[in-house]
This record gives sequence, C-alpha cells and structure tokens, in this order.
Amino acid sequence: MDNLERLGMGQVLVADPMSIWYLTGYWNVPYERFYALYLARDAKARTTQATLFCNRLFPDASQTGARVVTFDDTEDPVALVAEATRHGEPLGVDKVLAARWLLPLMDARVASEFHLGSPAVDDARSIKDARELDLMRAASATNDQAMAWLRSQLHEGVTEHEIASGLLAEYRRLGAQDHSFTPIVSFGANAADPHHEPDGTRLRAGDVVLFDVGCKRDSYCSDMTRTFFFGAEPSERDREVYETVRRANEAAEAIVAPGVTFAEIDLTARRIIEDAGYGSYFTHRLGHQIGLEDHEPGDVSSTHDEPVRPGQCFSIEPGIYLPGEMGVRIEDLVIVTENGCEVMNAYPKQLTVIE
Amino acid sequence: MDNLERLGMGQVLVADPMSIWYLTGYWNVPYERFYALYLARDAKARTTQATLFCNRLFPDASQTGARVVTFDDTEDPVALVAEATRHGEPLGVDKVLAARWLLPLMDARVASEFHLGSPAVDDARSIKDARELDLMRAASATNDQAMAWLRSQLHEGVTEHEIASGLLAEYRRLGAQDHSFTPIVSFGANAADPHHEPDGTRLRAGDVVLFDVGCKRDSYCSDMTRTFFFGAEPSERDREVYETVRRANEAAEAIVAPGVTFAEIDLTARRIIEDAGYGSYFTHRLGHQIGLEDHEPGDVSSTHDEPVRPGQCFSIEPGIYLPGEMGVRIEDLVIVTENGCEVMNAYPKQLTVIE
Repeated sequence: MDNLERLGMGQVLVADPMSIWYLTGYWNVPYERFYALYLARDAKARTTQATLFCNRLFPDASQTGARVVTFDDTEDPVALVAEATRHGEPLGVDKVLAARWLLPLMDARVASEFHLGSPAVDDARSIKDARELDLMRAASATNDQAMAWLRSQLHEGVTEHEIASGLLAEYRRLGAQDHSFTPIVSFGANAADPHHEPDGTRLRAGDVVLFDVGCKRDSYCSDMTRTFFFGAEPSERDREVYETVRRANEAAEAIVAPGVTFAEIDLTARRIIEDAGYGSYFTHRLGHQIGLEDHEPGDVSSTHDEPVRPGQCFSIEPGIYLPGEMGVRIEDLVIVTENGCEVMNAYPKQLTVIE
Repeated sequence: MDNLERLGMGQVLVADPMSIWYLTGYWNVPYERFYALYLARDAKARTTQATLFCNRLFPDASQTGARVVTFDDTEDPVALVAEATRHGEPLGVDKVLAARWLLPLMDARVASEFHLGSPAVDDARSIKDARELDLMRAASATNDQAMAWLRSQLHEGVTEHEIASGLLAEYRRLGAQDHSFTPIVSFGANAADPHHEPDGTRLRAGDVVLFDVGCKRDSYCSDMTRTFFFGAEPSERDREVYETVRRANEAAEAIVAPGVTFAEIDLTARRIIEDAGYGSYFTHRLGHQIGLEDHEPGDVSSTHDEPVRPGQCFSIEPGIYLPGEMGVRIEDLVIVTENGCEVMNAYPKQLTVIE
C-alpha cells in the first residue's frame, strides 16, 4: 500500500488474478465472472482495508484475511462494489479490468474519477525479493535442462508439433508444473515468424531450429530461446546473422546495471544489429519483465526511459528475421544485481551445428 | 453490421480475438499488446469500413479485406485509433477491452460516449448457421467418445491428475485439436467443488467420479459432464442425489423450445432440486452458451428473461454439491431447433456403478 500512497491513490480495485494472489495468497480463475480485490487506505489511521469480491462458485476465500463479499450468478456485483467504495474520491483500477465491468462501474459512479492504478501493484511485483529470486533461478535451471532435452529430440523428419507436444511431460519430469507460454518450435523459414506456432513442418538438413520455451515452477516463470543449425554447415550469411544476434545478446547483458535505463539496454543490442545491416529485420522490443507471469509490465524497449533496479528480472532477446528464409533469436533471463546483472540461463550460446 | 444498426451504433471497436476471427477470418493472440477491429457504418451509403489495428509482430493481416494499420512496440496505438474514429459520435466497445486501453481512449476523447457494443457481435455469434451446427455436433460426438475413454481409465489407486493429463492425447487421436477448457476430474469429496482442479487424489472404492471435459474441434467447442459411482453401490442418499440431478437435467432439456426463456429453463431444473430438498446445494446457474468459446454470453440463469432462438447452443448442467462428501453434475449441450431442441451428447446418463 505504500505504492498506492506514492501514487496519491486512496482506493484501488485490483482485477488481475495473479496480482490478487500476490497480495493475498488466494488463487482463483474467474473466467467471465466478476472478481476483484478492493483496497482502501485510511490515511489517518495508516491502515488498509481489503475487500475481496467473490462469486459463491469460487474456492473458499475466508482464509485470506480480507473481508469477503460473496454473490451468486443472479446478483449484480457492480452494486456490491458501489456499497464499498468512496464515491467522492478517485479510484485506481487494474489495467486488466474488462470494459464489461469498468463501464457499468462508471455508470454507477462508484468513484469521482477512474485512473489506471496498476503501476502500484506492478511496481511491487517488479522487484523480486530473495525468495522470489531463488524460485526464478530454479525455473530457469529447469528450462536449461529442458533445452538439452529439446536438442536431443532433433532428427531428420521429426515435426515441430511432435517435439512441442512432448515438452510438457519433460517439464513435469523435471519438477515444473506447466508451460509459462505456448512453446515455439520453428524449423527453417518458420523461424522468420517470431510468434510461429508449431505445426506439421518436418525437419530437413540445412534448417535452422528455433526453440523459445519456458516453464512455470512453484508459480514462477522461465523463458529462453536458442537457435541451432541442423544437418549442414550454415552459409556465410546465416553465420553472420547468428553471430550478430549473439553479440547483440551478450553486449546488452554486459551493460545491465542499476541506473542504466531499459532504453539504453535495448539500444545497445539494436545498434549492433543495425550496424551489421539487419536493423529492419529486428522487429520487436529487446525484452520484457517476467515473474509470476511470462510477460510483466515495464518492457525493455527504446521508449522505456526508467533505470533498471536491483531485483528486477527481464529477458534479453534480440533477433533477426529474414522472411521466407530463416530467423535467429537468442534469449536469456537476467536479474539486476547491486552492481550488474546475473544471467539466469547457463545453456551455451555459441553457434552449434547438429549433425 | 445489421446488428450494429439495430443497436443504434455507428461505430464499434471489437477487441476479442475470437470475435475478430469470426468477423474477418484472421486469428491472432495479442497478449498485452493492443489489438482491435474498428467498424464504422456509413448509414447513407449502407457500407461498413473495417480497420484492423495490428502490431508489426502479429501475423500478416493483408488478406483480411480490412484496412490494416500497423505499429511497433514504440508507437502509441491509442493515437492511431484517434485518427480513425468519429470523435463526435458514441463508440461501442467490446466487453473484453482492458482498462489499460479503454481509459487512455477515453482520455484521448476518441468518441463522445462509450458504451458496451459487444451485444452486436455476441448476438451474431449466438445464432449458429448450418455449417457451424455441424461442427458443434462433431465436437460433441468426439466428446462422447472421450468420455468412454475416461471411464475406461478408472481403476483403484489411479490419480485425478494421471487421467486428466492423458486426455489431450486422446482428444488428438480422435481428431480434435485441444481442450476447450481445463478438464475437471474429481474423485469423492473433491466433486463437491464444482471447479475442482485435478490433483494427486487417488481413486478408492465408494468414490463418486465426476468428469467435466470438452474439446475444440475445427474451432468449435464441446462440454459435457458425467458422474459415476466407483467400486461400491451408492447409499440411498447418494442415489437420491444422482436421480434428482438426472431428472433436473432431463426436465430442463424437455422444455427447451423457441419462445421459452432461459430463466424458465433454469427454473425447471432448479425447482426439481429444490423440491427434493437440495436447493441450497445447487450453487450455480444452469448453463451457458457455447460455440467458438466454451463460455459465450447469454447464460441460462434465473435472471435471463430472453426467449431462446433456433440455432443457439448452450449447456444444461444441474448439480448438487455436498461439501466434504460428494457432488453430482450431469451436463449436455443442446441446440435449439424450430420446435424443440436437439441434445448433442449421446453418452448415457443412467446411474452407473463401475466395478
């Protein structure tokens, strides 16, 4: 709640299930039903009252310490929120709150103004404590092991889909619970689409192989990309593409330290790719923060001018995508430390040809 | 767009990826990035202009027929929307549009007022045409086959998680692509939680077994629940619970016909459960519409007073949940026909004891 005070907000409505879990330890997936945590600050008493709005269908929330307001499918949760809020004050609302709830809350005038209040929670989630960092490291160590397994699955004729569909069982064998996002397995020209979904494409000698995968382990996410060459030495051009991406990845990781801005980190990688003549083929931001979710707010991009801070975790993932031909991306997760950064992924990055 | 006119809306911003797919045939998963289809009606010319807002990272959308406005991670999509909309007119916005976009769109005054415009698209999606109904039937036929497979997996000591984790491979073997929602496999007292997630609980003689599962096949969803008794004859009380739920399911299905309201269907099932003395243990609405998504707008509940119409598909899923003891739910999908309804699930519903 200190974050709320700093933002000058006395009341906020949190709708992101992951943020509610972060704040209360209570986990629930509401689908289309209303679900929110209302936090109201009493500035004089320096206390915060928490009210959790739960459909009766949701798991029992009485252990959260919050006041719990329950309702069923025939009741209007907006009217219940209206009973709780301070109508004459601004309300911070979560960035994920859907229009189906936000517009009726506005019509019911549950507050004097509505602002995005997410930064308060996002900021707290962005800085990981020691326990969280240990869990982040463990998830990435598992991902390193999974990458070795993925590599071992490569043989002529195997399909992207076959490899991708075996990964979840491997993650579970390694102690993780789930994917942190839909795995990307791309052969050959498919690697030129940064968000390619695994399909029936078969692996052939001369293809690049791009794996962008991550797991959830004890609620925390990993995310790593490696690109291999399969069955043949790469051409000079492909070798240049690979080495350019690798240098961009390593140069960006080398400059991360408290005080350096997200934009400077992005530009360090981007300049190397531009100088090599591939600037227009690096079509996305350099990275994203990560933690309980694979993508967390505050991206590593040329427009994000804030300095990084110790305890933040994010990806460094430059890429070059040549449409119709091939693509290379190399991604690690890093933790900002007191005087630099720790790269969580240990899986090798040197150019590798798999025979 | 006739639906838009009926609602008196000249412009609407659609943000639900599934609705955009329904309207344009273009599929994309935007995660936290901005993604929307803007539709503007020219009342005089009786034409509609469609503009699709896509990050450059998204798959190529040039085949959609819509005007495509692209942007990258460093550009502000709200400013691009502001260039397209008619600022002096109301704008219908999609119910899933997140506050992170809706509040900035309001601040930028891209329209004179903001209303929920989803009903226009939801209404079109609710009435399935002949091709869609065939796909719905095929998905439910696959689900019937999967239920037989699930039943065959029951043996003393097996865990909920073991059965649930094998289901996706079985769906794929049967020709489906994916789950339509996280499968529910509940043994014994776990069945008293309608949304229980499969865990390490082992099956023991005397347990009820509740399967609530569904697949996606050619983009359309199935969803069915069956409850079995395992390893022992049920007690008189448990038998009464089962038969009450079965009667509620069948009575509700029997009255579905054009003109009957969703509320009447809900109340038909609810009254049977109340009359048997279990009213307070039926804690949710009777059902939900279904199609491209497992849960679509317009639920089967006591507060939904609209009459059902031919071509609508929804679930009929009464349940009785006795906390700490057991639970029973029986669910079918139905299609409203010209003079009644067609039950898509053929899997038997009589009380079954598995030895």
